[in-house]
Formats: sequence, structure tokens, C-alpha cells
Amino acid sequence: MIFFSDAVIAIMLTLLAVELPVPEVHDPMDLLEGLAAHGSQYIAFLISFFVIAATWTAHHMLFVHVSRTDPPLITLNLLALFGYVLIPWASKTLGEVPNGAGVVVYAAAMTYVGGSMLLVLRHVVRSGLLDPTAPLGVIMGIRAWSAMTTIMFALSVPAGFVFGRWTL
Amino acid sequence: MIFFSDAVIAIMLTLLAVELPVPEVHDPMDLLEGLAAHGSQYIAFLISFFVIAATWTAHHMLFVHVSRTDPPLITLNLLALFGYVLIPWASKTLGEVPNGAGVVVYAAAMTYVGGSMLLVLRHVVRSGLLDPTAPLGVIMGIRAWSAMTTIMFALSVPAGFVFGRWTL
Amino acid sequence: MIFFSDAVIAIMLTLLAVELPVPEVHDPMDLLEGLAAHGSQYIAFLISFFVIAATWTAHHMLFVHVSRTDPPLITLNLLALFGYVLIPWASKTLGEVPNGAGVVVYAAAMTYVGGSMLLVLRHVVRSGLLDPTAPLGVIMGIRAWSAMTTIMFALSVPAGFVFGRWTL
Amino acid sequence: MIFFSDAVIAIMLTLLAVELPVPEVHDPMDLLEGLAAHGSQYIAFLISFFVIAATWTAHHMLFVHVSRTDPPLITLNLLALFGYVLIPWASKTLGEVPNGAGVVVYAAAMTYVGGSMLLVLRHVVRSGLLDPTAPLGVIMGIRAWSAMTTIMFALSVPAGFVFGRWTL
Repeated sequence: MIFFSDAVIAIMLTLLAVELPVPEVHDPMDLLEGLAAHGSQYIAFLISFFVIAATWTAHHMLFVHVSRTDPPLITLNLLALFGYVLIPWASKTLGEVPNGAGVVVYAAAMTYVGGSMLLVLRHVVRSGLLDPTAPLGVIMGIRAWSAMTTIMFALSVPAGFVFGRWTL
Repeated sequence: MIFFSDAVIAIMLTLLAVELPVPEVHDPMDLLEGLAAHGSQYIAFLISFFVIAATWTAHHMLFVHVSRTDPPLITLNLLALFGYVLIPWASKTLGEVPNGAGVVVYAAAMTYVGGSMLLVLRHVVRSGLLDPTAPLGVIMGIRAWSAMTTIMFALSVPAGFVFGRWTL
Repeated sequence: MIFFSDAVIAIMLTLLAVELPVPEVHDPMDLLEGLAAHGSQYIAFLISFFVIAATWTAHHMLFVHVSRTDPPLITLNLLALFGYVLIPWASKTLGEVPNGAGVVVYAAAMTYVGGSMLLVLRHVVRSGLLDPTAPLGVIMGIRAWSAMTTIMFALSVPAGFVFGRWTL
Repeated sequence: MIFFSDAVIAIMLTLLAVELPVPEVHDPMDLLEGLAAHGSQYIAFLISFFVIAATWTAHHMLFVHVSRTDPPLITLNLLALFGYVLIPWASKTLGEVPNGAGVVVYAAAMTYVGGSMLLVLRHVVRSGLLDPTAPLGVIMGIRAWSAMTTIMFALSVPAGFVFGRWTL
């Protein structure tokens, strides 16, 4: 299950970068301006890459201490993967749909991914799937990181609505 | 073989989501209408993702109990993978070809995938490749799930013909 | 090395199917005609998928008996992978470039892949990287299969030239 | 971590080839001219494939001797992967943006990848993550190769600026 999820996330992160727009530049001295014209998409890619890479790394550290799986864990994991595979589409929507609607779609997808990872973490802890020797500090660090990024993206959903209405 | 198949299906599921259409929205308040305009494609993606993810998870549970492989199993597995790699193309056809012809192509591909997984299961059971301690309930649950989804998609093939003719 | 190569070939085979053209059909009853209009591309995909899948499966059977790797084997493997990653591009060229030039590109790429696999096989046998208990029949079967497909594609290169000139 | 990185690089190399332009040829005898028209892109792909494949193979040889990981190594690895996933986008920019600006973007991305691999190597050696029995010759060979390719691409960044200005 870890292997299958790893493959899905590796593909997703690679496709995310393939979708980036090519800058239109005629003189190398104008390169920074050409890149700045697509700045919001490059920054969104940067955020997506490092937030997802960090979240996934954290969950790898968690799964080292998971001694067995059960059917609800498999279901929760599939629900999380469903969110992950939507990220390239959500990023494309962010880049192509202005007026805050793209922000809403992107932030909703990232919130879904973060929330589903919190559910995986909660299930693993509550159902006793964790190795008794798992370091509590690491588990709590992972939970804090996942909760923080999820809340941040959840707050971006209404922000997208407000920002979109305000600029119309 | 399991690893190679895992990689193929992980890539296929991720590409499936990359092909999704970006909604055209000008005001965040119209987002639901914008998404509803491509509703049939989003629902088809939802069905594809969860049916294939569940089928594949089921076969993972089966392969835990497969103690050895033989040449016919490798051949059947390649025939199944041939169907899996066609799913993104079949989904694109479903989205772009109206009047039921897209439904016929998509349902035929999903029927092929389901049917080939049933052949894999039948071969594994009949040729004694299963571990004698494999739980019979799990095997029968996998067969019931595979048979049910295969029959459902097989029935959608003639339904696509009828629906297509009727709307012309 | 086997894992990395597996991943490259799994991705390549999946991308091959994603590039397939969507048939243009208005009535489900015309589906076969719609598919036949792109028939040569569907048949090329069918050939590519099964030839590559069979060749790769054969080499998996070989590598089970390879007890160690050496630098030339790694180099030969990278040269083979270079050919494999070109297959989706060669298939697109086959579909888009008429008059035999597409056939020449596609057949040359498949000849390269087949030839590089024969070099891998020759090096493995000659440099004593094989387990002494490796079954000779399997090794010779793999060599016969690789040689046959390589020769078949090699002969298609001049055939493409002749066919292209003849139809002009 | 090795597995996840392997998957990212395998996907990236395969996507690199998918993005290659299809030659426009009407007569098989004109094939070489048709290919030469996109020559710079084919050569860039050739360089990217073999430089990245060789660098990655070298680091595999290194990681065989890494006996444990630590958080800085995971961070450095993610920073390196960030560069790798940008290569297909940088290659597309190289092909589509003339006047040296494309060269600057491509060479900068390759310099970033090479530099981040040197940082990984330095951390592994300095923090004692290496197995004490690791062969020093191999480690120094990997460092020399990584340093050489990084310097070569770093020198191409100003060369792109000069070349671009000169041809305007």
C-alpha cells in the first residue's frame, strides 16, 4: 500500500511541474519579467511541491511505526489518494480560472488532502495499529504539521470567494 | 510482476485525473454551475477511480496468498494490464464522443478489465497457485466484487447503444 | 536497477495508450467505422504493447538468474532504457508522419530496443554474471524471441523506405 | 526515500522523451533533414537523458554505502527532487524560447540539480552517514563527475546570456 501510494504521489508531483507554463521571452535580459508574468503559477507549484513532499515525508516516518493494516486504513488511504491525484487538475484550474474561483478549487483540494491525512493519522493512533515503541514526539509533530497546513488551506477557500467577489 | 502492475495502475489513475476538464467560471459563486457543466466527466472519473482502486486493492489481498506464478498467470496479467492502460483513453472518449458511442467504448474497456481480473482469479484458484491457508471468505468476496462490477459495465455496453440511438 | 527500469517501462507503456486518438463517431452504430479510421495507430499500439511487455517479461525471467551486476551491464541497461523512453515519441511519429517515414522512425526505435536487449543478454552470458544453475532452455528461448522481434523490426526499416517511395 | 526518488526520476526521464517534437517529413528520403530541423531539441534530450541517468546511477552506487538517514538528508533530497521535476519544463523552455533565454533556464535547472546532488554527497560524507567500508575511489569518482557536470552547466548560464544578446 505504501509502495502504490508512493508511486501515485511521485507521478503527481512530476506531472505538476510538466504543466508549468513556458515563459515568453525575446531577450535573456527580460527573463525575470517573463517568469514574473506567470509568477502566481510558479509560486503555487513551489507551495504544492514542498507542502505535499513534506506531508508525505512525515507520513512515511509515521508508517515506519505502523505494525499492521486493517480495512478502514486501506479505505482512508484510497480516499487520500483520490485527493492527491486531483492536485495537478486543481493547480491547472488555479492557473487558468481567475477571480478567486481557481483559488477556491485549489485550496479545497489541498484541504481535502490534508484532512484525509489527519483521518489516516487519527485512525492509526486510535485503532492501535502503531508499534508501542513509536516515538510520541514524532507522531505529535506530524499531527501538528498536518493540522496547520490543512487549516491554512481551509481558510483560503472563503478567502478565494471574498477576493474573487471584491475584484469583480 | 506485482510491482510492475502496481506502477502501471498508479500511473494510469494519476493520468486519469490530469485529463479532467478545467471549469470555466468568472465568479466564484458560479463555481458549482461551472463544475456541473462537466458533471458527467467528473462522475465518470469518480467511478473509474474508486472501482479500479477497489478492484486493485482486492487483488492485492488475493496475491498475498499466491505462493508461486506460472506462465499462464503472467500472460493473463499482461492481458489485464493491456485493459488498464486503455482506461485513460476510454475516459477521454467518454468525455468527447456523445450519443452513447463514448459510453460503449468506456463500458467495454471497464468490462474487459473486470473480465480479465476474473480470469486471473479463476486461474489462480484452479491451478493451485494459492497458499492452502488462504481465507476462503476473502477469495469469494473478491470474486463477488469483480463479477458484480464486470456485469454492471457489461450491461452498460448495450445501454450505450440504446441510449445513443434514442437521443439521435 | 531492475526497479528503476521497471518504472520507466511501466510509465512508457501507460503513456503509449494515453496518446491514442479518440474516434469521431456520431452514432454508436458507426463505432467500428470510427475506430477503423485510426486502425493503423490502434494496431501499432497493440503490437508495441505486447512486443515490449513480452520482451520485458522475458528479461525479468533472465534477471532472476543474474547473481551480480558490473559497470558495462549498467551502461548497456541505460542505453536500452534510452530506446524504451523514445517509443511513445516514435509511435506518435508513426501516427502523424505518412509515406513510410513514420514507419522508418518507429521500426528503427523498436530495432534499437530489441538490439540493446540482445546486447544485455550477450553481456550477461559472456561475462559470467549468470547464476550457474540458470536453466539454459529459458535463456535460449529469451534470445530467440529477442532476435526474432529485432530482425522483424529491422526489416521494416527498408520496407518503410520502399513503401513510402512507392506511394508517393 | 530511494524508492520515491527513483520513481520521480523514472517518470521525469520518460516524460522528457514524450515532449520531443515529431519531425515533419513527406518523403522517407528527407527524414534526416526533417530530424535535423529539430536537431537542437533532440541533442538537448540526449544530453539530459545521459547526464541525469549517469548522475542518478552514480548516486545509487553511493546510497548502497549509506547506512542511515537523518532529517537534513531528507530535506536535501527533497530539494534535489524539486530540481529534477523541473527538467521537463526547462527542456520545453529550451525548445520554445530562442535567443539564449531558453539556454539560461535549462542550464540553470541542470546546475541546480547537479549542485543539490553535490550537497547530498557532502552531507553524507561529513555527517558520517556512510558505511566505514565504503570504497573511497567510488565516492571520489562520483564527486568528480557531479562537480564536472555542474560546472559545465553553470558556465552555460552566462554563455546563454552572451549568445542571446549577440544574436539579437
